[in-house]
Amino acid sequence: MKSTSERILDAAEDLFAEKGYSATSLGDVADQVGIRSPSLYNHFKNKEALYGAVIERLLTVFTEIMAEMSEGELTRDRILNWLETIVRLHHETPNLARLLQHAALSGGPQTGEIIERLFKPMFSPDQRAIGGDEMFMMLGDANLQPWAVMALNNVVMSYITMAPMYRHMIGIDPFGPDALEKQLAMILKLAGAVMDYKG
Amino acid sequence: MKSTSERILDAAEDLFAEKGYSATSLGDVADQVGIRSPSLYNHFKNKEALYGAVIERLLTVFTEIMAEMSEGELTRDRILNWLETIVRLHHETPNLARLLQHAALSGGPQTGEIIERLFKPMFSPDQRAIGGDEMFMMLGDANLQPWAVMALNNVVMSYITMAPMYRHMIGIDPFGPDALEKQLAMILKLAGAVMDYKG
Repeated sequence: MKSTSERILDAAEDLFAEKGYSATSLGDVADQVGIRSPSLYNHFKNKEALYGAVIERLLTVFTEIMAEMSEGELTRDRILNWLETIVRLHHETPNLARLLQHAALSGGPQTGEIIERLFKPMFSPDQRAIGGDEMFMMLGDANLQPWAVMALNNVVMSYITMAPMYRHMIGIDPFGPDALEKQLAMILKLAGAVMDYKG
Repeated sequence: MKSTSERILDAAEDLFAEKGYSATSLGDVADQVGIRSPSLYNHFKNKEALYGAVIERLLTVFTEIMAEMSEGELTRDRILNWLETIVRLHHETPNLARLLQHAALSGGPQTGEIIERLFKPMFSPDQRAIGGDEMFMMLGDANLQPWAVMALNNVVMSYITMAPMYRHMIGIDPFGPDALEKQLAMILKLAGAVMDYKG
Protein backbone atom coordinates (compact mmCIF):
# COMPACT_ATOMS: atom_id res chain seq x y z
CA MET A 1 0.00 0.00 0.00
CA LYS A 2 1.45 3.32 -1.05
CA SER A 3 1.93 6.14 1.43
CA THR A 4 -0.15 9.31 1.06
CA SER A 5 2.99 11.20 -0.06
CA GLU A 6 3.56 8.68 -2.84
CA ARG A 7 -0.07 8.85 -3.93
CA ILE A 8 0.17 12.65 -4.02
CA LEU A 9 3.36 12.41 -6.11
CA ASP A 10 1.72 9.94 -8.52
CA ALA A 11 -1.35 12.13 -9.00
CA ALA A 12 0.70 15.34 -9.32
CA GLU A 13 3.04 13.73 -11.85
CA ASP A 14 0.11 12.67 -14.05
CA LEU A 15 -1.57 16.07 -13.81
CA PHE A 16 1.59 18.12 -14.43
CA ALA A 17 2.34 15.81 -17.39
CA GLU A 18 -1.12 16.31 -18.88
CA LYS A 19 -1.76 19.98 -18.15
CA GLY A 20 1.62 21.53 -17.32
CA TYR A 21 2.72 23.42 -14.21
CA SER A 22 0.57 26.55 -14.41
CA ALA A 23 -2.70 24.87 -15.34
CA THR A 24 -2.46 22.31 -12.52
CA SER A 25 -3.83 23.34 -9.11
CA LEU A 26 -3.20 21.70 -5.76
CA GLY A 27 -6.98 21.29 -5.57
CA ASP A 28 -6.86 19.12 -8.72
CA VAL A 29 -4.16 17.00 -7.12
CA ALA A 30 -6.05 16.62 -3.82
CA ASP A 31 -9.23 15.67 -5.71
CA GLN A 32 -7.35 13.03 -7.67
CA VAL A 33 -5.86 11.52 -4.50
CA GLY A 34 -9.18 11.76 -2.67
CA ILE A 35 -7.95 13.96 0.18
CA ARG A 36 -8.85 17.51 1.19
CA SER A 37 -6.52 20.27 -0.03
CA PRO A 38 -5.34 21.32 3.46
CA SER A 39 -4.10 17.75 4.10
CA LEU A 40 -1.84 18.08 1.08
CA TYR A 41 0.12 20.82 2.82
CA ASN A 42 1.13 18.32 5.52
CA HIS A 43 3.23 16.64 2.81
CA PHE A 44 4.37 19.43 0.47
CA LYS A 45 4.60 23.07 1.44
CA ASN A 46 3.35 24.46 -1.87
CA LYS A 47 2.88 23.72 -5.58
CA GLU A 48 6.49 24.49 -6.44
CA ALA A 49 7.78 22.09 -3.77
CA LEU A 50 5.45 19.37 -5.05
CA TYR A 51 6.58 19.96 -8.64
CA GLY A 52 10.21 19.85 -7.49
CA ALA A 53 9.63 16.48 -5.78
CA VAL A 54 7.94 15.12 -8.91
CA ILE A 55 10.85 16.26 -11.10
CA GLU A 56 13.40 14.84 -8.64
CA ARG A 57 11.73 11.43 -8.64
CA LEU A 58 11.65 11.38 -12.46
CA LEU A 59 15.24 12.58 -12.91
CA THR A 60 16.56 9.96 -10.49
CA VAL A 61 15.41 7.26 -12.92
CA PHE A 62 17.62 8.74 -15.66
CA THR A 63 20.70 9.84 -13.72
CA GLU A 64 22.49 6.50 -13.72
CA ILE A 65 22.11 5.82 -17.43
CA MET A 66 23.09 9.39 -18.35
CA ALA A 67 26.30 9.04 -16.32
CA GLU A 68 27.16 5.70 -17.88
CA MET A 69 28.32 7.13 -21.19
CA SER A 70 30.93 9.38 -19.58
CA GLU A 71 33.16 6.42 -18.66
CA GLY A 72 35.16 3.85 -20.62
CA GLU A 73 35.80 3.38 -24.31
CA LEU A 74 32.94 4.20 -26.62
CA THR A 75 32.20 1.66 -29.27
CA ARG A 76 29.44 1.54 -31.82
CA ASP A 77 27.78 -1.31 -29.90
CA ARG A 78 27.94 0.54 -26.59
CA ILE A 79 26.31 3.60 -28.11
CA LEU A 80 23.52 1.52 -29.64
CA ASN A 81 22.94 -0.36 -26.36
CA TRP A 82 22.84 2.92 -24.46
CA LEU A 83 20.33 4.35 -26.92
CA GLU A 84 18.13 1.29 -26.55
CA THR A 85 18.19 1.64 -22.76
CA ILE A 86 17.29 5.35 -22.98
CA VAL A 87 14.39 4.68 -25.37
CA ARG A 88 12.99 1.91 -23.13
CA LEU A 89 13.37 4.11 -20.06
CA HIS A 90 11.41 6.97 -21.66
CA HIS A 91 8.64 4.55 -22.63
CA GLU A 92 8.46 3.22 -19.06
CA THR A 93 8.59 6.73 -17.64
CA PRO A 94 6.75 8.85 -20.21
CA ASN A 95 5.88 11.67 -17.83
CA LEU A 96 9.40 13.12 -17.81
CA ALA A 97 9.25 13.90 -21.54
CA ARG A 98 5.74 15.35 -21.10
CA LEU A 99 6.75 17.57 -18.17
CA LEU A 100 9.82 18.87 -19.99
CA GLN A 101 7.79 19.61 -23.11
CA HIS A 102 5.27 21.61 -21.08
CA ALA A 103 8.14 23.50 -19.40
CA ALA A 104 9.70 24.30 -22.79
CA LEU A 105 6.37 25.59 -24.14
CA SER A 106 4.98 27.40 -21.12
CA GLY A 107 7.82 27.78 -18.62
CA GLY A 108 7.97 26.45 -15.09
CA PRO A 109 10.18 26.36 -12.01
CA GLN A 110 13.48 24.49 -11.84
CA THR A 111 13.90 24.32 -15.60
CA GLY A 112 17.55 25.33 -15.22
CA GLU A 113 18.26 22.42 -12.91
CA ILE A 114 16.57 19.93 -15.22
CA ILE A 115 18.69 21.14 -18.13
CA GLU A 116 21.85 20.98 -16.05
CA ARG A 117 21.28 17.39 -14.95
CA LEU A 118 19.60 15.80 -17.93
CA PHE A 119 20.78 17.60 -21.05
CA LYS A 120 24.04 19.36 -20.31
CA PRO A 121 26.15 16.18 -20.16
CA MET A 122 25.12 15.41 -23.73
CA PHE A 123 26.18 18.82 -25.04
CA SER A 124 29.66 18.97 -23.48
CA PRO A 125 32.32 19.45 -26.17
CA ASP A 126 34.30 16.52 -24.78
CA GLN A 127 31.28 14.28 -24.41
CA ARG A 128 32.58 11.24 -26.18
CA ALA A 129 29.20 9.66 -26.75
CA ILE A 130 28.72 12.13 -29.52
CA GLY A 131 32.27 13.38 -30.06
CA GLY A 132 35.59 11.61 -30.12
CA ASP A 133 37.92 10.88 -32.98
CA GLU A 134 35.29 9.16 -35.03
CA MET A 135 32.85 12.05 -34.83
CA PHE A 136 30.08 9.62 -34.05
CA MET A 137 26.73 11.30 -34.57
CA MET A 138 28.10 14.63 -35.76
CA LEU A 139 27.25 14.08 -39.41
CA GLY A 140 30.80 14.96 -40.42
CA ASP A 141 30.67 18.48 -38.98
CA ALA A 142 31.55 19.15 -35.33
CA ASN A 143 29.68 22.49 -35.51
CA LEU A 144 26.48 20.55 -35.98
CA GLN A 145 26.98 18.50 -32.79
CA PRO A 146 24.43 20.42 -30.67
CA TRP A 147 21.86 20.23 -33.45
CA ALA A 148 22.43 16.49 -33.87
CA VAL A 149 22.05 16.02 -30.10
CA MET A 150 18.79 17.99 -30.13
CA ALA A 151 17.53 15.90 -33.06
CA LEU A 152 18.36 12.66 -31.27
CA ASN A 153 16.63 13.86 -28.11
CA ASN A 154 13.61 14.96 -30.09
CA VAL A 155 13.28 11.64 -31.90
CA VAL A 156 13.28 9.83 -28.56
CA MET A 157 11.35 12.22 -26.32
CA SER A 158 8.92 13.77 -28.79
CA TYR A 159 7.69 10.34 -29.78
CA ILE A 160 6.31 10.24 -26.23
CA THR A 161 4.77 13.72 -26.41
CA MET A 162 3.48 13.62 -30.01
CA ALA A 163 2.52 9.98 -30.50
CA PRO A 164 -1.07 10.38 -29.23
CA MET A 165 -1.66 12.56 -32.28
CA TYR A 166 -0.42 9.83 -34.63
CA ARG A 167 -2.30 6.96 -32.99
CA HIS A 168 -5.00 6.95 -35.65
CA MET A 169 -2.43 6.77 -38.47
CA ILE A 170 -0.23 4.00 -37.17
CA GLY A 171 -3.22 1.87 -36.22
CA ILE A 172 -1.72 0.49 -33.00
CA ASP A 173 -1.19 1.86 -29.49
CA PRO A 174 1.98 3.99 -29.81
CA PHE A 175 2.93 2.98 -26.26
CA GLY A 176 2.26 -0.74 -26.68
CA PRO A 177 5.04 -3.31 -27.02
CA ASP A 178 4.75 -3.66 -30.84
CA ALA A 179 5.03 0.09 -31.38
CA LEU A 180 7.98 0.30 -28.99
CA GLU A 181 9.86 -2.38 -30.92
CA LYS A 182 9.29 -0.49 -34.18
CA GLN A 183 10.38 2.80 -32.62
CA LEU A 184 13.52 1.06 -31.30
CA ALA A 185 14.30 -0.57 -34.66
CA MET A 186 13.88 2.80 -36.41
CA ILE A 187 16.10 4.67 -33.92
CA LEU A 188 18.86 2.06 -34.03
CA LYS A 189 18.83 2.09 -37.84
CA LEU A 190 18.81 5.88 -37.85
CA ALA A 191 21.75 6.01 -35.42
CA GLY A 192 23.56 3.46 -37.57
CA ALA A 193 22.97 5.54 -40.70
CA VAL A 194 24.31 8.62 -38.89
CA MET A 195 27.40 6.78 -37.61
CA ASP A 196 28.10 5.49 -41.12
CA TYR A 197 27.66 8.95 -42.63
CA LYS A 198 30.44 9.67 -45.10
CA GLY A 199 29.43 13.20 -46.16
CA MET B 1 -3.38 48.78 -39.94
CA LYS B 2 -4.69 45.38 -38.96
CA SER B 3 -8.40 44.82 -38.43
CA THR B 4 -9.66 43.98 -34.95
CA SER B 5 -10.36 40.41 -36.10
CA GLU B 6 -6.77 40.02 -37.22
CA ARG B 7 -5.45 41.45 -33.95
CA ILE B 8 -7.66 39.02 -32.04
CA LEU B 9 -6.34 36.12 -34.16
CA ASP B 10 -2.73 37.22 -33.60
CA ALA B 11 -3.17 37.47 -29.82
CA ALA B 12 -5.11 34.21 -29.59
CA GLU B 13 -2.51 32.37 -31.68
CA ASP B 14 0.29 33.49 -29.37
CA LEU B 15 -1.65 32.62 -26.21
CA PHE B 16 -2.85 29.22 -27.44
CA ALA B 17 0.76 28.50 -28.54
CA GLU B 18 2.15 29.42 -25.14
CA LYS B 19 -0.49 28.03 -22.78
CA GLY B 20 -2.57 25.59 -24.81
CA TYR B 21 -6.31 25.56 -25.46
CA SER B 22 -7.68 24.85 -21.96
CA ALA B 23 -5.45 27.27 -20.06
CA THR B 24 -6.22 30.21 -22.40
CA SER B 25 -9.33 32.25 -21.63
CA LEU B 26 -11.11 34.70 -23.91
CA GLY B 27 -10.45 37.29 -21.19
CA ASP B 28 -6.67 36.77 -21.67
CA VAL B 29 -7.11 37.29 -25.41
CA ALA B 30 -9.22 40.44 -24.96
CA ASP B 31 -6.67 41.86 -22.48
CA GLN B 32 -3.84 41.22 -24.93
CA VAL B 33 -5.70 42.98 -27.76
CA GLY B 34 -6.78 45.79 -25.45
CA ILE B 35 -10.55 45.36 -25.95
CA ARG B 36 -13.30 44.34 -23.55
CA SER B 37 -14.31 40.66 -23.56
CA PRO B 38 -17.88 41.27 -24.82
CA SER B 39 -16.46 43.00 -27.93
CA LEU B 40 -14.60 39.81 -28.76
CA TYR B 41 -17.90 37.99 -29.26
CA ASN B 42 -18.72 40.35 -32.13
CA HIS B 43 -15.91 38.63 -34.04
CA PHE B 44 -15.86 35.01 -32.78
CA LYS B 45 -18.81 33.25 -31.21
CA ASN B 46 -16.81 31.35 -28.58
CA LYS B 47 -13.37 30.03 -27.66
CA GLU B 48 -13.67 26.96 -29.87
CA ALA B 49 -14.57 29.09 -32.91
CA LEU B 50 -11.61 31.37 -32.24
CA TYR B 51 -9.28 28.37 -31.88
CA GLY B 52 -10.67 26.93 -35.12
CA ALA B 53 -9.96 30.18 -36.96
CA VAL B 54 -6.42 30.27 -35.56
CA ILE B 55 -5.79 26.68 -36.67
CA GLU B 56 -7.29 27.37 -40.10
CA ARG B 57 -5.02 30.37 -40.67
CA LEU B 58 -1.95 28.33 -39.65
CA LEU B 59 -2.85 25.26 -41.72
CA THR B 60 -3.42 27.36 -44.83
CA VAL B 61 0.27 28.28 -44.76
CA PHE B 62 1.23 24.61 -44.98
CA THR B 63 -1.42 23.19 -47.32
CA GLU B 64 0.28 24.12 -50.58
CA ILE B 65 3.67 22.70 -49.69
CA MET B 66 2.16 19.50 -48.25
CA ALA B 67 0.27 18.93 -51.51
CA GLU B 68 3.34 19.54 -53.64
CA MET B 69 4.96 16.19 -52.91
CA SER B 70 1.96 14.21 -54.14
CA GLU B 71 2.64 15.13 -57.78
CA GLY B 72 5.39 14.39 -60.25
CA GLU B 73 8.50 12.24 -60.05
CA LEU B 74 10.29 12.19 -56.74
CA THR B 75 14.00 12.65 -56.88
CA ARG B 76 16.52 12.94 -54.11
CA ASP B 77 16.92 16.67 -54.87
CA ARG B 78 13.19 17.30 -54.84
CA ILE B 79 12.83 15.63 -51.47
CA LEU B 80 15.69 17.66 -50.01
CA ASN B 81 14.29 20.92 -51.44
CA TRP B 82 10.86 20.10 -50.04
CA LEU B 83 12.35 19.38 -46.62
CA GLU B 84 14.19 22.70 -46.68
CA THR B 85 10.97 24.54 -47.51
CA ILE B 86 9.11 22.76 -44.69
CA VAL B 87 11.82 23.55 -42.15
CA ARG B 88 11.90 27.24 -43.15
CA LEU B 89 8.11 27.42 -43.03
CA HIS B 90 7.98 26.00 -39.50
CA HIS B 91 10.58 28.53 -38.37
CA GLU B 92 8.59 31.40 -39.89
CA THR B 93 5.35 30.03 -38.43
CA PRO B 94 6.42 28.46 -35.13
CA ASN B 95 3.00 28.60 -33.51
CA LEU B 96 1.60 25.68 -35.50
CA ALA B 97 4.11 23.27 -33.98
CA ARG B 98 3.44 24.70 -30.51
CA LEU B 99 -0.34 24.43 -30.85
CA LEU B 100 -0.13 20.85 -32.09
CA GLN B 101 2.21 19.88 -29.28
CA HIS B 102 -0.20 21.32 -26.70
CA ALA B 103 -3.07 19.44 -28.36
CA ALA B 104 -1.09 16.18 -28.28
CA LEU B 105 -0.28 16.63 -24.58
CA SER B 106 -3.53 18.05 -23.26
CA GLY B 107 -6.17 17.53 -25.94
CA GLY B 108 -8.18 20.17 -27.72
CA PRO B 109 -10.92 20.61 -30.31
CA GLN B 110 -10.45 19.87 -34.02
CA THR B 111 -7.44 17.66 -33.47
CA GLY B 112 -8.89 15.11 -35.89
CA GLU B 113 -9.12 17.67 -38.65
CA ILE B 114 -5.55 18.86 -38.11
CA ILE B 115 -4.29 15.30 -38.35
CA GLU B 116 -6.33 14.68 -41.49
CA ARG B 117 -4.99 17.72 -43.32
CA LEU B 118 -1.43 18.01 -42.08
CA PHE B 119 -0.21 14.55 -41.21
CA LYS B 120 -2.33 11.99 -43.02
CA PRO B 121 -0.88 12.71 -46.49
CA MET B 122 2.56 11.79 -45.15
CA PHE B 123 1.42 8.46 -43.77
CA SER B 124 -0.44 7.16 -46.83
CA PRO B 125 1.01 3.85 -47.96
CA ASP B 126 1.35 5.16 -51.51
CA GLN B 127 2.84 8.47 -50.44
CA ARG B 128 5.84 8.49 -52.70
CA ALA B 129 7.73 11.12 -50.72
CA ILE B 130 8.58 8.41 -48.27
CA GLY B 131 7.74 5.32 -50.27
CA GLY B 132 8.35 4.39 -53.87
CA ASP B 133 10.66 1.85 -55.39
CA GLU B 134 13.71 3.22 -53.71
CA MET B 135 12.19 3.08 -50.23
CA PHE B 136 13.43 6.58 -49.58
CA MET B 137 13.35 7.29 -45.87
CA MET B 138 12.15 3.87 -44.82
CA LEU B 139 15.49 2.69 -43.51
CA GLY B 140 15.22 -0.48 -45.58
CA ASP B 141 12.01 -1.70 -43.92
CA ALA B 142 8.59 -0.61 -45.20
CA ASN B 143 7.06 -1.59 -41.83
CA LEU B 144 9.04 1.20 -40.24
CA GLN B 145 7.64 3.86 -42.58
CA PRO B 146 5.21 5.42 -40.07
CA TRP B 147 7.92 5.52 -37.40
CA ALA B 148 10.37 7.15 -39.82
CA VAL B 149 7.72 9.73 -40.74
CA MET B 150 7.07 10.49 -37.08
CA ALA B 151 10.82 10.83 -36.46
CA LEU B 152 11.18 13.24 -39.37
CA ASN B 153 8.23 15.30 -38.15
CA ASN B 154 9.61 15.34 -34.65
CA VAL B 155 13.06 16.49 -35.73
CA VAL B 156 11.48 19.41 -37.61
CA MET B 157 8.58 20.37 -35.33
CA SER B 158 10.00 19.54 -31.91
CA TYR B 159 13.01 21.73 -32.57
CA ILE B 160 10.46 24.56 -32.45
CA THR B 161 8.77 23.33 -29.29
CA MET B 162 11.87 22.15 -27.36
CA ALA B 163 14.56 24.60 -28.49
CA PRO B 164 13.86 27.18 -25.75
CA MET B 165 15.08 24.57 -23.30
CA TYR B 166 18.36 24.13 -25.18
CA ARG B 167 19.05 27.86 -25.68
CA HIS B 168 21.57 27.99 -22.84
CA MET B 169 23.52 25.02 -24.26
CA ILE B 170 23.79 26.06 -27.88
CA GLY B 171 24.75 29.61 -26.92
CA ILE B 172 22.77 31.32 -29.70
CA ASP B 173 19.11 32.12 -30.28
CA PRO B 174 17.63 28.82 -31.55
CA PHE B 175 15.27 30.82 -33.77
CA GLY B 176 17.91 33.19 -35.17
CA PRO B 177 19.28 32.87 -38.72
CA ASP B 178 22.55 31.14 -37.68
CA ALA B 179 20.72 28.45 -35.70
CA LEU B 180 18.25 27.92 -38.54
CA GLU B 181 21.09 27.33 -41.03
CA LYS B 182 22.64 24.75 -38.67
CA GLN B 183 19.29 23.04 -38.13
CA LEU B 184 18.81 22.94 -41.91
CA ALA B 185 22.30 21.59 -42.57
CA MET B 186 21.78 18.89 -39.93
CA ILE B 187 18.37 17.86 -41.30
CA LEU B 188 19.58 17.70 -44.90
CA LYS B 189 22.59 15.59 -43.87
CA LEU B 190 20.35 13.37 -41.76
CA ALA B 191 17.92 12.90 -44.65
CA GLY B 192 20.86 12.16 -46.94
CA ALA B 193 22.19 9.54 -44.51
CA VAL B 194 18.74 7.94 -44.33
CA MET B 195 18.34 7.91 -48.13
CA ASP B 196 21.78 6.32 -48.49
CA TYR B 197 20.99 3.72 -45.84
CA LYS B 198 22.12 0.28 -46.99
CA GLY B 199 21.06 -1.77 -43.96
